[in-house]
Amino acid sequence: MKNKVTTAAIVLLLAGTLSAAEPAADAGGLVELKAELQNNLNIVWTCIAAFLVFFMQPGFAMVEAGFTRAKNSVNIIMKNLMDFSLGTLTFFFLGFGLMFGETNGFFGTSDFMIAGSQGDPASWDWTFLIFQTVFAGTAATIVSGAMAGRTKFRSYMFYSVLICGLIYPISGSWAWGGLANGSGWLENLGSGFTDFAGSSVVHSVGGWLALAGAIVLGPRLGKYGPDGKPKAIPGHNITLAALGVFILWFGWFGFNPGSTTIGDGEIGRVAVTTNLSAAMGAIAAMATVWMVNGKPDASMSLNGALAGLVAITAGCYTVTPFGAVIIGLCAGVIVVFSVYLFDRLKIDDPVGAVSVHGVCGAFGTIACGLFNAEAALGLAETSTGLFYGGGAGKLGVQLVGTAAYFIWAFGIGFLMFSAIKYTVGLRVSRDEELKGLDITEHGNEAYAGFQVFSTT
Amino acid sequence: MKNKVTTAAIVLLLAGTLSAAEPAADAGGLVELKAELQNNLNIVWTCIAAFLVFFMQPGFAMVEAGFTRAKNSVNIIMKNLMDFSLGTLTFFFLGFGLMFGETNGFFGTSDFMIAGSQGDPASWDWTFLIFQTVFAGTAATIVSGAMAGRTKFRSYMFYSVLICGLIYPISGSWAWGGLANGSGWLENLGSGFTDFAGSSVVHSVGGWLALAGAIVLGPRLGKYGPDGKPKAIPGHNITLAALGVFILWFGWFGFNPGSTTIGDGEIGRVAVTTNLSAAMGAIAAMATVWMVNGKPDASMSLNGALAGLVAITAGCYTVTPFGAVIIGLCAGVIVVFSVYLFDRLKIDDPVGAVSVHGVCGAFGTIACGLFNAEAALGLAETSTGLFYGGGAGKLGVQLVGTAAYFIWAFGIGFLMFSAIKYTVGLRVSRDEELKGLDITEHGNEAYAGFQVFSTT
Amino acid sequence: MKNKVTTAAIVLLLAGTLSAAEPAADAGGLVELKAELQNNLNIVWTCIAAFLVFFMQPGFAMVEAGFTRAKNSVNIIMKNLMDFSLGTLTFFFLGFGLMFGETNGFFGTSDFMIAGSQGDPASWDWTFLIFQTVFAGTAATIVSGAMAGRTKFRSYMFYSVLICGLIYPISGSWAWGGLANGSGWLENLGSGFTDFAGSSVVHSVGGWLALAGAIVLGPRLGKYGPDGKPKAIPGHNITLAALGVFILWFGWFGFNPGSTTIGDGEIGRVAVTTNLSAAMGAIAAMATVWMVNGKPDASMSLNGALAGLVAITAGCYTVTPFGAVIIGLCAGVIVVFSVYLFDRLKIDDPVGAVSVHGVCGAFGTIACGLFNAEAALGLAETSTGLFYGGGAGKLGVQLVGTAAYFIWAFGIGFLMFSAIKYTVGLRVSRDEELKGLDITEHGNEAYAGFQVFSTT
Repeated sequence: MKNKVTTAAIVLLLAGTLSAAEPAADAGGLVELKAELQNNLNIVWTCIAAFLVFFMQPGFAMVEAGFTRAKNSVNIIMKNLMDFSLGTLTFFFLGFGLMFGETNGFFGTSDFMIAGSQGDPASWDWTFLIFQTVFAGTAATIVSGAMAGRTKFRSYMFYSVLICGLIYPISGSWAWGGLANGSGWLENLGSGFTDFAGSSVVHSVGGWLALAGAIVLGPRLGKYGPDGKPKAIPGHNITLAALGVFILWFGWFGFNPGSTTIGDGEIGRVAVTTNLSAAMGAIAAMATVWMVNGKPDASMSLNGALAGLVAITAGCYTVTPFGAVIIGLCAGVIVVFSVYLFDRLKIDDPVGAVSVHGVCGAFGTIACGLFNAEAALGLAETSTGLFYGGGAGKLGVQLVGTAAYFIWAFGIGFLMFSAIKYTVGLRVSRDEELKGLDITEHGNEAYAGFQVFSTT
Repeated sequence: MKNKVTTAAIVLLLAGTLSAAEPAADAGGLVELKAELQNNLNIVWTCIAAFLVFFMQPGFAMVEAGFTRAKNSVNIIMKNLMDFSLGTLTFFFLGFGLMFGETNGFFGTSDFMIAGSQGDPASWDWTFLIFQTVFAGTAATIVSGAMAGRTKFRSYMFYSVLICGLIYPISGSWAWGGLANGSGWLENLGSGFTDFAGSSVVHSVGGWLALAGAIVLGPRLGKYGPDGKPKAIPGHNITLAALGVFILWFGWFGFNPGSTTIGDGEIGRVAVTTNLSAAMGAIAAMATVWMVNGKPDASMSLNGALAGLVAITAGCYTVTPFGAVIIGLCAGVIVVFSVYLFDRLKIDDPVGAVSVHGVCGAFGTIACGLFNAEAALGLAETSTGLFYGGGAGKLGVQLVGTAAYFIWAFGIGFLMFSAIKYTVGLRVSRDEELKGLDITEHGNEAYAGFQVFSTT
Repeated sequence: MKNKVTTAAIVLLLAGTLSAAEPAADAGGLVELKAELQNNLNIVWTCIAAFLVFFMQPGFAMVEAGFTRAKNSVNIIMKNLMDFSLGTLTFFFLGFGLMFGETNGFFGTSDFMIAGSQGDPASWDWTFLIFQTVFAGTAATIVSGAMAGRTKFRSYMFYSVLICGLIYPISGSWAWGGLANGSGWLENLGSGFTDFAGSSVVHSVGGWLALAGAIVLGPRLGKYGPDGKPKAIPGHNITLAALGVFILWFGWFGFNPGSTTIGDGEIGRVAVTTNLSAAMGAIAAMATVWMVNGKPDASMSLNGALAGLVAITAGCYTVTPFGAVIIGLCAGVIVVFSVYLFDRLKIDDPVGAVSVHGVCGAFGTIACGLFNAEAALGLAETSTGLFYGGGAGKLGVQLVGTAAYFIWAFGIGFLMFSAIKYTVGLRVSRDEELKGLDITEHGNEAYAGFQVFSTT
């Protein structure tokens, strides 16, 4: 039967009258078929990666709640729920166009709400939109941990709208913007700024905003003794915080490999570098805190895994496995000393968000210039639009980009939080803080029936 | 080398003697190749979606346990474990055939245990079976929250067998049944009843059964004061409940986009509408409860996200993003007032399951008639078997379907729970309820070592 | 337009001068296209399955923490974090080559760090590496539960390095090794040893190592009264343990179906057998403990689900759904009596890891010989490299393999833990054990602010 069809098809081919409804059995037909099927595979892969990145939301919520006190758990939950919910809407209506629309190099000005693609029910843009929405949500939620235990809920929501609607998409467009029509200024700089999945674009932007927030807010009551020495305020559920870290690690397999947005063999490689850096980060942070403090502390070790994940995010696509191990090792050491440093500087960051996302995000962005390994990986020949060049001038460009994200996020964060502070107010009253935000802000108790006490 | 092969192939083609072992390089060969690869992609996508829907089980378990008291946590865990486990078996042996077998319009009568496909190790039916099994498990588990804290474990298990074996699959066949050979009466009604992923078929069936259960059981001891006024009985772990809600949201990306069962660009669109509605639901519920009660309550806000998810489930494929935002907005408002209404009616639903799944499921089913947007989405031209028409008579059909699911699920639920009540008994003794079901039903303590107290 | 292209292509084809850049529109071109797209699909599927298996790590962590006392929670978290982190690195540098390199039948000697493939950025080997890394991590983490509450953290880490670097990969190579160049001795034995996803290779190796560890360590203080009778030491958070079990069940959909490493219809079938066995295991364990002890105990029921999952892991690909139900049923009964037996033998395994993974893993491996169903499933004709034959001599081979894994894992575990015991020491001091390992080993408190008491 097959032969019959073959003969018939050949006749049709030669006659040049093949029905338009049937795929053409020629080179063009094969190219089309391949493009269609690979596009569908890319969509399935990118959608699933987006879902994994969405799942990082409860990861952040559990880490932040677990590492802070019981009396503020409901507030943390609500901040995480609302920054993602408000972020979803503002990114849809405003942020997406600013980040991916036709760009002047500094922000986009078209494609709001994916514009024309709305009429095409199967457009790739729907998948791209959900993927980018959950990325914006990640940047937004980083801040809540650093501002835990003392921030007005109402003011926090105002901030959420601004970050997903303006701050994140504008600076995001510098490195990733205008995919179809021109590109951002950092992408055009020298050999091009490399931040594959967002060590700077997502994490250090979140981290530097968190730094600004923590500074403007001031430390929690009781964090510094009368002698000015920092006092540890232990988290109320380390088991839950650990669950959060594992959820984040799991979600990062969507965050980093998913950023190829292509379902092919490279996602396996990106998963390998990501996992190696995370593992090495946890080990390095544990070893560091063990040497410094005498015991293998759990919060530091867990933050070490996150540090390794944040740091590899920029270079996960362009470094070798060995590069990934070294990046994780450095990040694990850096995060411990960074946490101690901010503690000394009287910048109270209850969960270490500034050190993990800000400092290790910046380190990772620079390291991806240092450990660039195109040649070793055979990437030089297969370089695509997703791989932003590299070579001699790499380190300089990476430093410029890292600085640009710091100046932007910290600067605008400082202005914004200060403006909130001196208008509607950023911090709850002393009384509210002592009672805990769960009761005073939400009228809820997180653990009804449990005997919970609080010394501060 | 390639050219050589080409020349050889052409000779073979012209001679009509191409080896049967090699795929035919003609139109037929391309069509076959495309079908095979797309089928494999659909399988991978649908399996992963099924796993995400399975993961909703611990989501429900955490929401229900977190929103109720510590002394009943083990019991809730066991009910969730057993309704899924018993449901898996009864759906396999009985439910699948009733729902998807050759149908008389009211229930199926063939294909039990996927029948003939059992001999084909790679049949699509295996994937379809696991996908439908986890859907049945979702319908089953909704009820446990509304009946928490006072139901005999033995009687609950009896109910689980009935819902997955009979109640859910029979009414499920009305809208989704007999895919290959005829279809259910609701699908045949007018322009066809639309419930893309199960606002009615799954959620409101679960919700109305929950309503029947809550009514037949009566309220928990202490829920209503001597003056008849409802008293809040706060949940014992809001952090865990929030984790549950985020897990459900994550799982819903399998539930809704997965219901296309096709790995193509439409899954991105369904993910977008689903996410927008959930986000707007959370915001709307928070705003509503804030205005009514003076504080942004966490349980209501979390239930708002679920309300948005349940409501968009029917129309996630056929409404525009704007439609999704409006549906989420309405659902978030509705769920708050619905919870208050049932509280006043002395129907004690500890976690709000009736409001979230029953009421918002019904609303979503009707709304998907109101916000039908085929033309805007360009769906009219590409309408497939998965898209149930639409147009003028849409609203009427949706109302009939919504009513039919209410009458069926509430009616049969009321009869079933009453029959259990007056035979083996549905409710534990007063003493057992006061001590908590963990100790009395299971001999377990959920939080050994913790100081937990209970006022009721 | 399509016809134009067609005509042009035909001309080129006949002239034999088709550009090398365009895919050849012939049989060879179709075969290549199919191979490339299916390979990409396999990569997406296997990567996602790997991520699901990674997610089993917090599943184990929650099960183990939840089933043990609050004072050792941080220690359990840290053991889980470190066995995966250290395991990732040692498996990358050493284990992978020992398991999958060119083999002499007993261990591999090449392909360390996937060797040559490191230069190919899109090689399948990257995906295979991440998939196998998370499997090694699973084997490693099983042990921590059985040794909970009394093991030195430092010594535990030493063990982690050995299992992922040597013990697991060497015995793993016997059944799965040397994929490309020769194969392990068990695979070559008779009709070939069958352990599709690792009932023996992963789970019973972990379980028998756990048995050796529990014996060498001795029971926890207070586990046996002065009369020698075992005393229950209840877990501190059954809700969390249940979450862990559901997470493991979810992850198993990566573990078992993912082991095909091929994105086609068979993954749906493997998901069905896996799910049926898990569900039946939970029901059977609940029924058994109910009959024996008078109440449906939660820990036993949850372990029953895990028992069903472990037992079906060997045969998930080669048994029918009925076979899966029977395997789950037996595993659920076996796990209960096994837990009681080890309790009587004064082998203190706080979470039942030896019974779940060791005993049910061995049972599953043997059962997959008993319930072999190639003919019924139509597998005989489609047998591939992933399906290890079967038939008359099956049971004998399965028994030999099961025994070999017991001798290897228990033997080497006993030697290793004894060596640690008599050198650096395996167990903490009496004082440290009473205070809890969280404070003494890590300087952390898991639940700061909560009133937690401890009777032992």
